[in-house]
Amino acid sequence: MTYCVAMNLQDGLLFASDSRTNAGVDHVATFRKMQLFDKPGERLLVLLSAGNLATTQSVVSLLRQRAAHDPDNHNIFTVRSMYDAAELIGETLKQVVQRDAGGQSQGSVDFGCSFILGGQIAGEAPRLFNIYPQGNFIEATPDTPYFQIGESKYGKPIIDRVISYQTPVNEAAKCALISFDSTIKSNLSVGLPIDLLLYRHDTLAIGLQQRIGEQDEYFQTIRKAWGEALRQSFAALPPLPW
Amino acid sequence: MTYCVAMNLQDGLLFASDSRTNAGVDHVATFRKMQLFDKPGERLLVLLSAGNLATTQSVVSLLRQRAAHDPDNHNIFTVRSMYDAAELIGETLKQVVQRDAGGQSQGSVDFGCSFILGGQIAGEAPRLFNIYPQGNFIEATPDTPYFQIGESKYGKPIIDRVISYQTPVNEAAKCALISFDSTIKSNLSVGLPIDLLLYRHDTLAIGLQQRIGEQDEYFQTIRKAWGEALRQSFAALPPLPW
Repeated sequence: MTYCVAMNLQDGLLFASDSRTNAGVDHVATFRKMQLFDKPGERLLVLLSAGNLATTQSVVSLLRQRAAHDPDNHNIFTVRSMYDAAELIGETLKQVVQRDAGGQSQGSVDFGCSFILGGQIAGEAPRLFNIYPQGNFIEATPDTPYFQIGESKYGKPIIDRVISYQTPVNEAAKCALISFDSTIKSNLSVGLPIDLLLYRHDTLAIGLQQRIGEQDEYFQTIRKAWGEALRQSFAALPPLPW
Repeated sequence: MTYCVAMNLQDGLLFASDSRTNAGVDHVATFRKMQLFDKPGERLLVLLSAGNLATTQSVVSLLRQRAAHDPDNHNIFTVRSMYDAAELIGETLKQVVQRDAGGQSQGSVDFGCSFILGGQIAGEAPRLFNIYPQGNFIEATPDTPYFQIGESKYGKPIIDRVISYQTPVNEAAKCALISFDSTIKSNLSVGLPIDLLLYRHDTLAIGLQQRIGEQDEYFQTIRKAWGEALRQSFAALPPLPW
């Protein structure tokens, strides 16, 4: 499986994705699930993916190939809004699933996938979309400023407790890492390294991009500190009164 | 949905279940998911259920009805071991699913359900089983002393961090309540009241049985203290170094 989370906050966007893919328990591999489409100063689009790897890779390849082959036409580097980008990705996703799943007895294979698309195109505000396997999509708002795809449940409680639209984006990055730590501890199908990307509004350039592996000193520090804090907080709770 | 958790620890057994059932978002109701089959001094069996309510209720009704109609024969109050009780429940489950799902086009209805069965019968040690929708079952051991059924993911990280076979059962009860709080916060299909039952080994009697609702003072205290401790612990983590 996979775990990806992204947030559209007051001062910026935050993206994080794991790198584990598996087909059954035998075929475990590392694949980056964060893709960038950027023209510095003009647009920065970040795409996170979960689901069938053949489908997500094909969607990304087609987006890049079509832009390269026909740079002046409607493509991921020329769309005029984030909304149009989400629509283009949803359309491409439907084409790939139609091609791969259509006209064969599919058995129990799931060709579906989900995307989170976020970023900013000059002339409009930063936006964040969750693109469903059906190709349609929803947009984050200040009421619900974050989306998760993949193995989202283990890491949701900490986000629900800590994140609001006003949370500074670097605090949100810390929260995303804790959310990943909880997920990785409880689920084998989510694994390091974590790709982390931080974008500050209206910069139209990457704020911070970091790949966080097993040896990353900061990640080791906070996962250990968090585990200890949880155990101490738990021990400090009053005992059952009954 | 539902969330139930049970643990077989060094000094006792712990059971907790929520009370919300829903079919779609319209049919939301409160049903107890914890059933007791006990003869004080001789046996105490606790059954937690998740899944199709028609199926789980039928299984429980048949277990009780068959014991009432034919008290001297093989039934839930006469089986000689917890293993035989798990087998009887699995068998009853298969009969109900066969009856309800067989011989009709089922559409997309899922008739399946899961059970956790724990307790002690005089003459053997306390035991804990997870009974699958197929009617087969696994038993908890000191390596993995707990089972969850239903919406298990949100509340798993805290259990994974805090619980071991050596954890005292009243500490485990505290952990179960925190695990429920995380689940209820993140998932609408799990709701109060929580039924909590604590059993101390070799007593063959209920140690503590408590129904915990919205107004429960202790639950209010620990969920508030836990939320604050999490936010404080989070704020105390070192900032991003990059």
